[in-house]
Amino acid sequence: MRRTILDLTRGVPPVEAFPLDELACCAEAALRRDSNALLQYGRSPGYAPLRAWLAEQYGVRPAQVFTGNSSLEIFWFVIQTHLQPGARVFVESPSYDRALTLLRRAGAQIVGIPMEDDGLNLQVLEDELERGTPALLYVIADFQNPTGITTGLDKRKRLAALAEEYGFWIVEDAPYRHLRYVGQEVPTIWSLAPSRVLHVSSFSKVLAPGLRLGYLVGPTQPVAALAAWAVDTYIGPVFPTQGLVYEYCLRGLLEPNIGRLRTVYHPRLLAALSGLDKHLAGATWATPEGGFFVGVTLPDGSDVAALRVRAERAGLRLSSGQDFFPTAAEGMRFLRIPFCSLTPEEIEEALSRLACLL
Amino acid sequence: MRRTILDLTRGVPPVEAFPLDELACCAEAALRRDSNALLQYGRSPGYAPLRAWLAEQYGVRPAQVFTGNSSLEIFWFVIQTHLQPGARVFVESPSYDRALTLLRRAGAQIVGIPMEDDGLNLQVLEDELERGTPALLYVIADFQNPTGITTGLDKRKRLAALAEEYGFWIVEDAPYRHLRYVGQEVPTIWSLAPSRVLHVSSFSKVLAPGLRLGYLVGPTQPVAALAAWAVDTYIGPVFPTQGLVYEYCLRGLLEPNIGRLRTVYHPRLLAALSGLDKHLAGATWATPEGGFFVGVTLPDGSDVAALRVRAERAGLRLSSGQDFFPTAAEGMRFLRIPFCSLTPEEIEEALSRLACLL
Repeated sequence: MRRTILDLTRGVPPVEAFPLDELACCAEAALRRDSNALLQYGRSPGYAPLRAWLAEQYGVRPAQVFTGNSSLEIFWFVIQTHLQPGARVFVESPSYDRALTLLRRAGAQIVGIPMEDDGLNLQVLEDELERGTPALLYVIADFQNPTGITTGLDKRKRLAALAEEYGFWIVEDAPYRHLRYVGQEVPTIWSLAPSRVLHVSSFSKVLAPGLRLGYLVGPTQPVAALAAWAVDTYIGPVFPTQGLVYEYCLRGLLEPNIGRLRTVYHPRLLAALSGLDKHLAGATWATPEGGFFVGVTLPDGSDVAALRVRAERAGLRLSSGQDFFPTAAEGMRFLRIPFCSLTPEEIEEALSRLACLL
Repeated sequence: MRRTILDLTRGVPPVEAFPLDELACCAEAALRRDSNALLQYGRSPGYAPLRAWLAEQYGVRPAQVFTGNSSLEIFWFVIQTHLQPGARVFVESPSYDRALTLLRRAGAQIVGIPMEDDGLNLQVLEDELERGTPALLYVIADFQNPTGITTGLDKRKRLAALAEEYGFWIVEDAPYRHLRYVGQEVPTIWSLAPSRVLHVSSFSKVLAPGLRLGYLVGPTQPVAALAAWAVDTYIGPVFPTQGLVYEYCLRGLLEPNIGRLRTVYHPRLLAALSGLDKHLAGATWATPEGGFFVGVTLPDGSDVAALRVRAERAGLRLSSGQDFFPTAAEGMRFLRIPFCSLTPEEIEEALSRLACLL
């Protein structure tokens, strides 16, 4: 096992997580069920039966659901339809590196609000609000990427109230929400302030990322703006995969699949936590209750950039901590540990190798 | 038949053109053949086997092929990676309305070069080149949308030479190229100046638009720039549909399908041309040898905007001619007749209704 390279860089599902047989059957069945709609040019917010199914899940009208070719691109569409260049945007610090990349591309003025073990530091947030209302606040409230932290209910309520009071949008990115392994579900921020929150999610983590099927739930006006932007960009999203996912959901396969994923991933989270306890005594982390990641802060004086080089030689691939922070000076001690794509044994081995390097 | 609404607005294939059975089988087979690659996050230029297949068709290396979720979005990526706001861009006048929309969105300074029966008016093009080199020239050289015109070989050679001499990019959009019903194929502009041409095409017209599978062939440097832009935008394109199309091509089904489409569409073109001869004596048009459209210029004094309102009442839907021109003042007399989605009888009926309105 020593010689295998262990990759702790990417938050991807393991390939054995994909329900291949079911997906292959549904791909064919969907095309046979509704070929004309799936093969012809379709409407830009997505395949109508899938939007209706999603609307039912969220208790909204289909006009409040936009689907697209990945939640990341939907976020990009939100940026392009809602932000002027130089707009002020609040993010969790650290946050999802790809979201930061798109905000930078749009020329946003990114303000990082530090994370605490139960979500954003509200004092800093409110101080920043006094300095200037943002166009939007980007939050991953459930099992955050990269820290694994879930924002507590009180903080969600406060965020919802602040969004309404100051009049800014919250983009609530929730790809991991259904992957809770322990503890109680917390209401979405969207459910607390539906007129001010754009709730974004996808089938990447609960089904398969290659589908690139993301969706957004929000008020009709921003959904219509996204649809108008999308039709000019690509006419409509890829439809046969939307049909496939609709077929899959219609057959009642999604819930059992999520249940199966929880049973695969929970032991991996436990292995990560016990490996950290065993091997990384000087480090700190919040204990995730689900999702894909544990975010580890290494002891004072650590330098992840230098560590990565040494780790690579020891057969261990690590992410750059700095990528997750709005300002490059931060994150020198931050290490994102994605635990879903490795077996419990591999996780133990990876953390043991890490300990040797520290 | 009088009461049926006949739609002459959209250049879409008829649903009976879709090889449903083959596509449904290939969708399933592709997932079974290569599930790990198709269901996992994939590389941003697209599914490697499909890129390799396309590369072989064009006699290039896979690094020269970029695939994405529609050729329209690929054009948008080209715009975003190659144009500064305010950049000078040359287009055929008239041109594809959605391409014009994206150029306007990017803040390009759009210069329309008038179309003649064998392609761009080169005198006007060269005069405009003297005024300032464009960042790019957007051309649909085969069976142009909306005129149906094919650019002649001499003009292609001149365009290729000018692009090399002045150092601008040509985007050669070629979705209809394989749908030639009569006459001889003309070499692509790309084959005449491969270092200066980005050749864009898709499977929308030869297979099914719902797949939203477009591709670009060009030098490695712009392809790499597109890949970098794409990974930041959506990580990778939708993969299961790329697998489906690869499976379809691998089985040798594409060529026979194109042959079948030609036999379906050729009589429709003939019906359009004979209907125009019979009913629209005062109008002029170039005779297409393939594709989806005939572009008709109505007699002096015609007003398509007013005609559209009257046509709607007579059960006939018409496109706005102005949408296809860079400046709104043009196109008052221009009518795009898409002939593929209607049967020969419907085309005859549509043109007969049109004649009654003129």
